[in-house]
Amino acid sequence: MNFASILFILGKLIELEGALFIAPAVVSLFYGERQGITYFGMAAVCAVIGRLISIRKVKKQNYYAKEGFIAVAVGWIIMSVVGCLPFVITGEIPDFTDALFETVSGFTTTGSSILHDVERLSHCSLFWRSFTHWIGGMGVFVFMLAILPMTGAQNMHLMRSESPGPDVGKLVPKLGDSAKILYMIYFVITVLQMVILLISGMPLFDSITLTFGTAGTGGFGIYNTSIAGYTYIQQLIISIFMVLFGINFNFYFFIIIRRSIKEAINMDEVKTYLVIIAASTALIMWNARNMFDSIEDGFIKSFFQVSSIITTTGYSTADFDKWPALSKTILVCLMFIGACAGSTGGGFKISRLIIMAKSYVRELRHFIHHRLVKNIYMDGRKVKDETVSGVKVYLVSYVLVLIVSMLIISLDGFDFETNFTAVMATLNNIGPGLSVVGPAGNFDGFSIVSKYVLTFDMLAGRLELYPMLLLFAPGTWRKR
Amino acid sequence: MNFASILFILGKLIELEGALFIAPAVVSLFYGERQGITYFGMAAVCAVIGRLISIRKVKKQNYYAKEGFIAVAVGWIIMSVVGCLPFVITGEIPDFTDALFETVSGFTTTGSSILHDVERLSHCSLFWRSFTHWIGGMGVFVFMLAILPMTGAQNMHLMRSESPGPDVGKLVPKLGDSAKILYMIYFVITVLQMVILLISGMPLFDSITLTFGTAGTGGFGIYNTSIAGYTYIQQLIISIFMVLFGINFNFYFFIIIRRSIKEAINMDEVKTYLVIIAASTALIMWNARNMFDSIEDGFIKSFFQVSSIITTTGYSTADFDKWPALSKTILVCLMFIGACAGSTGGGFKISRLIIMAKSYVRELRHFIHHRLVKNIYMDGRKVKDETVSGVKVYLVSYVLVLIVSMLIISLDGFDFETNFTAVMATLNNIGPGLSVVGPAGNFDGFSIVSKYVLTFDMLAGRLELYPMLLLFAPGTWRKR
Repeated sequence: MNFASILFILGKLIELEGALFIAPAVVSLFYGERQGITYFGMAAVCAVIGRLISIRKVKKQNYYAKEGFIAVAVGWIIMSVVGCLPFVITGEIPDFTDALFETVSGFTTTGSSILHDVERLSHCSLFWRSFTHWIGGMGVFVFMLAILPMTGAQNMHLMRSESPGPDVGKLVPKLGDSAKILYMIYFVITVLQMVILLISGMPLFDSITLTFGTAGTGGFGIYNTSIAGYTYIQQLIISIFMVLFGINFNFYFFIIIRRSIKEAINMDEVKTYLVIIAASTALIMWNARNMFDSIEDGFIKSFFQVSSIITTTGYSTADFDKWPALSKTILVCLMFIGACAGSTGGGFKISRLIIMAKSYVRELRHFIHHRLVKNIYMDGRKVKDETVSGVKVYLVSYVLVLIVSMLIISLDGFDFETNFTAVMATLNNIGPGLSVVGPAGNFDGFSIVSKYVLTFDMLAGRLELYPMLLLFAPGTWRKR
Repeated sequence: MNFASILFILGKLIELEGALFIAPAVVSLFYGERQGITYFGMAAVCAVIGRLISIRKVKKQNYYAKEGFIAVAVGWIIMSVVGCLPFVITGEIPDFTDALFETVSGFTTTGSSILHDVERLSHCSLFWRSFTHWIGGMGVFVFMLAILPMTGAQNMHLMRSESPGPDVGKLVPKLGDSAKILYMIYFVITVLQMVILLISGMPLFDSITLTFGTAGTGGFGIYNTSIAGYTYIQQLIISIFMVLFGINFNFYFFIIIRRSIKEAINMDEVKTYLVIIAASTALIMWNARNMFDSIEDGFIKSFFQVSSIITTTGYSTADFDKWPALSKTILVCLMFIGACAGSTGGGFKISRLIIMAKSYVRELRHFIHHRLVKNIYMDGRKVKDETVSGVKVYLVSYVLVLIVSMLIISLDGFDFETNFTAVMATLNNIGPGLSVVGPAGNFDGFSIVSKYVLTFDMLAGRLELYPMLLLFAPGTWRKR
C-alpha cells in the first residue's frame, strides 16, 4: 500500500473542502447570520491543515485498485467528519452522531434526515446541507482529477471507485479531460434548472438549494413538507430534472460533445430507464387513484414520486406511505433498481439490471437447451465477461450488506417494514423509506449503533460497496 | 416433445394416487366416518382412469431435460387437482380454489392453510391432508422410479426435476436403486419418529399425522394450536426430527449403506446447517428472552421455531409474529435459506448458499487482486462451473418470481410484511409467514387471483422453479 500517495490526496481533499466552506459563509453574509463565522473559520482551518498534510509532493502519484479504493473510502469518511463539524459547532445539530448521519446523508446524496424540523436551521447551514448533495453527486475525486495535474492510467481507479456503474469508462483518452467534461455537463444542467425554477417564480434561495438536491439526486428539502408546498409547474420542473440527472451522462456527452444523437438514443440503458418510469407512473396513477384529487393531480404526484425514488433523490410531494400496497411495492422495487450508471443517482443501476437480465436469459437457455453460450451485447457492443461476473458479485455483496444491516438495526425493535425500507433507503441513497422512516417521519428514533450502521450503508451505497467493504477486509492494512 | 412418454407416466401417476387414496379410506373405517366413501370412490376412479391413460405401453421411455421438466410440472398439477377433489366432494372445503390451495400446500410440503378451524375436519380428511406431506416430501416421481422398471440414463431428468438441490446425483449406479435407497431411508426415519412419539405418550393418530408433517417438512397440524398443546418432550422430539429430515439424505446414505461416518461428518452442507441452527437458536433465546417463562421454555420454543422454519416445516409452538424484530428478521432469513439439498426441506438450500458464498469470495478476490480464478471446492470435491452458474441463475429466477408475485398479491391491499412473508412462506414451502399470515392467522383473506399466484409459488418452490417456469415459456409447447 502506497500510504504517501493516499496521504497526499487526502490533504488535497481537505484543502478543497475548505474552499467549499466559503460558499455557505458567503450566504451567511446575505442573511446576516452569525453561524457564518463558523464556516469562515472551518474554511481557514481546512486550508491550513490540508496544505500541511499535502505539502510533501509525492513523486509517483499512482493509485492502483487497492490504493484507489482505500483513498476514496477514507476520503469520504474524512470529508463527512469535517463536513459535519459546522452543525456541531453552531449547535444546530449538537449531537456528533446525528450531525455525521446528516452530513453523510448529504454527501452520499441520500437525503435521509434525523431532523424533526429543518426549517429551524440557519440559511447558511441549509445551504451547506443542500450543497453537500451537489458536491457528492458527481464526486469529489472526479473533481480533483479534473483540476489536479494527475497523470497515469492507474488513476482511473480513483474515478472508478467513485463513479457509479458496472463498467466505468473514460469518455475521451485523457482522464482529466473526461472528468472535466462530466463536471461541465453537470454544471450546465444545474444552472439550467436554477434558471427555469427562477422563471417559474421560485425564490432564489429555494431555487439554488432545491436544484442542488435534484442535481445530486439527494433529496434534502428546506421545508418540512419537502416539495409539497410548491406549484404543480414547479413540481413538474423538478420531476423532469430528476429524470434528467438520473440519465447516464454518456447520453449528454454523445449529444453535446460528439453531436451524435443516434448514439445517444441507441443507449439501451436510457431507453429501459424511461420505459420503467412511464410504466410505474401509469400503474401508480391507476392503483392509487383514490388518493388523488384529479387526473392531473394523480399524474403530477405519481410521476414526481416515481422520478424521485428511481433516481434515488427522495423528494416527496405526498405521503406515499399511505398509498395502497401495490404502489408501495412498486416504489420499493424502484428503490432497489435505482437510476442509470454514470449518473448522479444511486441504487443497483439500470445497466446492471440489463446485464443481469441478459446473462440470466443466456444461462437459462444454456441450462435448458445445452446450447452454446453466446456473448451478451449492450448498445450493440459486447459486454466483457469480467463485467458480467462483477455485476453478480456486486448483487451478492449488496444482499449481504442488506441482511447484516437489517439484523443489527432490528435490535431497535421497529417493525419489519421500517427496518427493511430504512436499509433500502440508505443503501440505495434514496432518503425516505416507509412506515416510521416514511416521508412524514425521520431517522432520529434509531439507536446510536443503528445510526452508524445506516451511515455506513449510505457510504457503502454511494461508493458501490467495495471501497467500504475493503476497509474491513483483513489484509488491506498489511504493508506489502 | 415426446408426448406419448409424458402421457404414459401421467397415467401411472394417477394410478398411484388411486392406490394412495386407500390409506385415508381405511382410516375412515376406524372412526366410522361416511367421508370414507369418497376416498374409496376416488381410489376406484383413479385406478380405472390411470390405467386407461397408460394402457398403451411406450417403447422408448426416455425423458430428456424438457420432457422431464414438463412431465413433473404437469404431474404435480394433476396430482394436486385430483388430490383436492375429496375435500370438495365431502364438502369439508367446498370451494375448489381453497381445496386446491390446501392440497398443493400439502403435496409441496408448504403447510400454509386457508382453514380457520382444522379441528372441524374428519379424521380421514385430516389424515389425507397430512399424508400429502409425506407423499410430496420425497417426491412421487422418485417413488415411481423406485417401483417402475424404467431404464435409461435420461430418466435422471425426472428425478432431477423433483429432487431439491443444485447438483442432484445418483447415489448408486442404477437410478432405480438410488430412488429405492432414498425411500428406504425416508421410511425408516419416519417409522422411528412415530414409534418414539408413541412411547412419549402421544395418541396413535397424532403420532402418525404429525410424523407425516415432520418427515415431509410440511407443517399441517391437526389442532388449531399447531404443536403448542403437546409436552416439552414431544416438542423436543419433533424439533430433533425436523432437523434430521432437513439433512441431506446423502448423510444417511454414507452412514447406513456405505458405513462411512467419516464421509458423512465431512459434509460441508450438514456442518453449516447445524451451525446456523445453533447460532439462530442462541440469538433468538437471548433476543426474545422476555417472551419466555424460563430458560428451558426459551430453549424449547426457540429451537423448535428455528428448526421448523429452516427446514421449512412450519409447525409452531408460539406466535412468533409477536417476537421482537431481530428474532423475526432472523426467521425471515432462515425462511429464505431453507434446509439442505437432497432433503425433504425447501428454500434456497444450504448447499446453494455455500456455493454462492465461495463463488463470491472467489470473484471478489479476482476483482481486487486480479489473481487467477481458482476452482470452488465442496466436501473436498471440485464444484462444476455449470453448477455454479446454475445456482446464480436460480437465485435470479427466484427473485423474479418473488417480485412478480408480490406485485400481484399486493393488489389485495394487505401490508408489506404480510405480502412479503406470504410469498416467502409459499415460495419456500414453509407455511406461516408474519402479520396477517402469521402462525395465528391464515391465507383465507387473499383474493382468488392471489390464491392462485401463491399456489403457483408453492409448486414453483417445491419443483425448484424451472419445471413451472417452463410451462409458461414460449416454445415449450411447439412440436419438434
